Amino acid sequence: MADLQHVLGPADLSDADRAAILELARSIKATDGVPVPSRLRVGALYFDPSLRTRASFEQAVRVIGGAAQTLNPADTWNIELDPQAVMDGTSVENIVEAAGVLGRFFHLIGVRSFRRPGPWAVERTEPVLSRIAEHAGVPVISLEGATHHPCQGLADLLTLHEHFGDDLRGLPVTLCWSWHPRALPTAVPHTFLLQAALAGCDVAVAHPEGLDLDPEIVAQARTAAEARGGRVQVTHDRAAALAGRRVVYVKSWGPLEGGAPTPTSLRHWLVDEAALAATDAAKVMHCLPVRRNVVIASEVLDGPRSIVLDQAGNRLWAQAGLVSHLARRHGVIA
Amino acid sequence: MADLQHVLGPADLSDADRAAILELARSIKATDGVPVPSRLRVGALYFDPSLRTRASFEQAVRVIGGAAQTLNPADTWNIELDPQAVMDGTSVENIVEAAGVLGRFFHLIGVRSFRRPGPWAVERTEPVLSRIAEHAGVPVISLEGATHHPCQGLADLLTLHEHFGDDLRGLPVTLCWSWHPRALPTAVPHTFLLQAALAGCDVAVAHPEGLDLDPEIVAQARTAAEARGGRVQVTHDRAAALAGRRVVYVKSWGPLEGGAPTPTSLRHWLVDEAALAATDAAKVMHCLPVRRNVVIASEVLDGPRSIVLDQAGNRLWAQAGLVSHLARRHGVIA
Amino acid sequence: MADLQHVLGPADLSDADRAAILELARSIKATDGVPVPSRLRVGALYFDPSLRTRASFEQAVRVIGGAAQTLNPADTWNIELDPQAVMDGTSVENIVEAAGVLGRFFHLIGVRSFRRPGPWAVERTEPVLSRIAEHAGVPVISLEGATHHPCQGLADLLTLHEHFGDDLRGLPVTLCWSWHPRALPTAVPHTFLLQAALAGCDVAVAHPEGLDLDPEIVAQARTAAEARGGRVQVTHDRAAALAGRRVVYVKSWGPLEGGAPTPTSLRHWLVDEAALAATDAAKVMHCLPVRRNVVIASEVLDGPRSIVLDQAGNRLWAQAGLVSHLARRHGVIA
Repeated sequence: MADLQHVLGPADLSDADRAAILELARSIKATDGVPVPSRLRVGALYFDPSLRTRASFEQAVRVIGGAAQTLNPADTWNIELDPQAVMDGTSVENIVEAAGVLGRFFHLIGVRSFRRPGPWAVERTEPVLSRIAEHAGVPVISLEGATHHPCQGLADLLTLHEHFGDDLRGLPVTLCWSWHPRALPTAVPHTFLLQAALAGCDVAVAHPEGLDLDPEIVAQARTAAEARGGRVQVTHDRAAALAGRRVVYVKSWGPLEGGAPTPTSLRHWLVDEAALAATDAAKVMHCLPVRRNVVIASEVLDGPRSIVLDQAGNRLWAQAGLVSHLARRHGVIA
Repeated sequence: MADLQHVLGPADLSDADRAAILELARSIKATDGVPVPSRLRVGALYFDPSLRTRASFEQAVRVIGGAAQTLNPADTWNIELDPQAVMDGTSVENIVEAAGVLGRFFHLIGVRSFRRPGPWAVERTEPVLSRIAEHAGVPVISLEGATHHPCQGLADLLTLHEHFGDDLRGLPVTLCWSWHPRALPTAVPHTFLLQAALAGCDVAVAHPEGLDLDPEIVAQARTAAEARGGRVQVTHDRAAALAGRRVVYVKSWGPLEGGAPTPTSLRHWLVDEAALAATDAAKVMHCLPVRRNVVIASEVLDGPRSIVLDQAGNRLWAQAGLVSHLARRHGVIA
Repeated sequence: MADLQHVLGPADLSDADRAAILELARSIKATDGVPVPSRLRVGALYFDPSLRTRASFEQAVRVIGGAAQTLNPADTWNIELDPQAVMDGTSVENIVEAAGVLGRFFHLIGVRSFRRPGPWAVERTEPVLSRIAEHAGVPVISLEGATHHPCQGLADLLTLHEHFGDDLRGLPVTLCWSWHPRALPTAVPHTFLLQAALAGCDVAVAHPEGLDLDPEIVAQARTAAEARGGRVQVTHDRAAALAGRRVVYVKSWGPLEGGAPTPTSLRHWLVDEAALAATDAAKVMHCLPVRRNVVIASEVLDGPRSIVLDQAGNRLWAQAGLVSHLARRHGVIA
């Protein structure tokens, strides 16, 4: 199965893959035509809640003429990850059979499995997604894992291209932390950082102390950016990180090791118009859902800076491009 | 968005709309042919339970070649209705973004949101449905709101035409209250009353004291009926309201302000053959689900009077007509 | 409705039906082509949990160009089975209307309804499935009932043909009980027994004392096998039942009358390589999900004997054949 192309993070796609996916996405979006029926069957398996991804992923498959089906194992399945386990407890199915069966029914499988409790050193290996990819026998797309949310990354990239043109090299973008009552996972910030770096942007990351992103992903992003004429800078000084920027990607996250809610003393990281005044008329992005007046002020979301709905809408087209690309590459559609 | 045609109640459709929808519904039903593939994508969002609507609405979209997707926000979403709220509580998404995103994924959105606890004066403004319609950017169809159930109304109308011909003006129909252990909402009786009035029927409404329907909707129905040669009469005398009628539409409901279950002293409002003896061989309608031998006797439901399955079956075709009409009007399908 | 062909168990299909279904299944599987759009609408109603059946049945309908919809009445419906009941309790809908309505929306209905608590003498009449079949007005397919799982049976049969050729008469197959922490229902073992007998196999059944299968189904299988040159033997001696066999179908089940978990003193019925050493290089089958190292050892599941994924994958194609056959027979597709 070495030939299978799984997409668990932005770096699983080459520059050529990404260019092909964006080209397909743009073309499908521009037409929004009657789908050409195909034999493509795609299963989407959610170990965690979703509505935006659920809607946009299922529709993305239909837009390219395929049959999508959304499955919720959380309702009924307790899956054992160790193929050698003595399964006399609560798990009724092993990942070997679960993944193997889905790979017989579907040509391609999307899976959502968030970071679970436990050490980051384990979670960063994507224990669920990587084992499904190992046993499915068909390409697996992450619909948000512990480390990355590659579909969101492609939608973000499509949105950046729509607003800033074909060449994003050197574009000053800032990934800006914001407060949230819960300690959220880091998949989206990891992906935006790496995706923007792979596009050659000039990426700043601003967050409070103690909320470092994964050091290896930061290093990977830095290398990718520098190879393409961009750079990656990380700071705790939000004002410095916002001055003169063209794009501010707002996102809250908690510590890599999980744990307690973020202290309310950080609520002033709320992104409002005052915080954005020194940017270069920055566009504001967020993956949604967003807590108004806690993460981003309503004045920003309702004003001309916000491109959050463009981003969300592009989930549909970016995913259509991704699925279409993989289905072609694996010979499922012509 | 003034140009968008939302359908939250029977009066949101003109007589010409209604005629076009019925014509489409009849034609689609007569053929039940292979769907002509279209680019239409329809989302159906259920804040409240459903199975009949869920099945018939999704199939209605498929019958006309579109892609339907059923979404259950109740499982995962706690939606804030105030765009200016400081969202540091349990709501994770604002209606502005929730509706806006769905409007980017789908060409048309169906939404079910029943009357919630709280004053009728608030609920009668359809706080959920009207805000989604405001922010979606695409047409919104009520799949039962606080005030109306317009899809049921169209199915009822199609059924009346099938049994009583093209011209329903002057047809003596009675909306007849019945007992039920719970205080049910008034959307269905409101809609049948107004829909029958808009068809020019001679409408009688019979219910016990203290269970008045919304006075403005009754007045609106009266005006509509009289403009078309019909009339609307409301009474607490069931026997008088049933004598000589051709159609008896049975439905239970509670007080507009909600509250306690209906007293068991009203159980004799059960509709059985004895109650219907003085009608003019009336056909019996009900929106289903119906509690046998509590709301309607089995002898009625299993006998020749009952057209409740015709009604339910027509949900499919009436909704196919409605969605097709709206998709055409908005240029989604040709 | 005498003309309707319901499929609640293997014996509801004639030998000619079965041959036609297998031929369709093989042809659809060999092509896996672009579905030919049809007008077929199929509803799948789950009173009990499922993921494998849910995925494979919905995809089976799509593979043949139809529209499938999965419905979960357990979430919202409490259905009364007695048409004459006074429904003033918790049931909100009667099976008469529930089945009748679905029969108006769909051309064919799949239903899953496991054995419920209560006497086997009642459950073996399939109270839920048979009443839906009685009132639906369209063909009903069991997606696992109290007595049988006919879709699994067809997938098993397709798999046996793929591995052992066109003529299965005399093939030595063993249905071999295994331990499981819960007392599982008997639908799958009943079906494998009867399905193999209908194919003329030489069927052995091995299980501990006190776990007899339904005597009438055993007798029916014996008659069917003997009429086709096979036989049925039941024993408590597992070693004797495994010696020289070509196929071992492993399955755990509890007593017909339900009740307590199987005693752990029976854990040595685990099927491992040692247990299979005296077979004739037997292939191992199981309907999945399977508890590794409790029901079957990992060494067996991961080795060359196991054809459990072939079986599971064939659910898709066997069901496509079955639905296609019924839809043709009832004139829904050409």
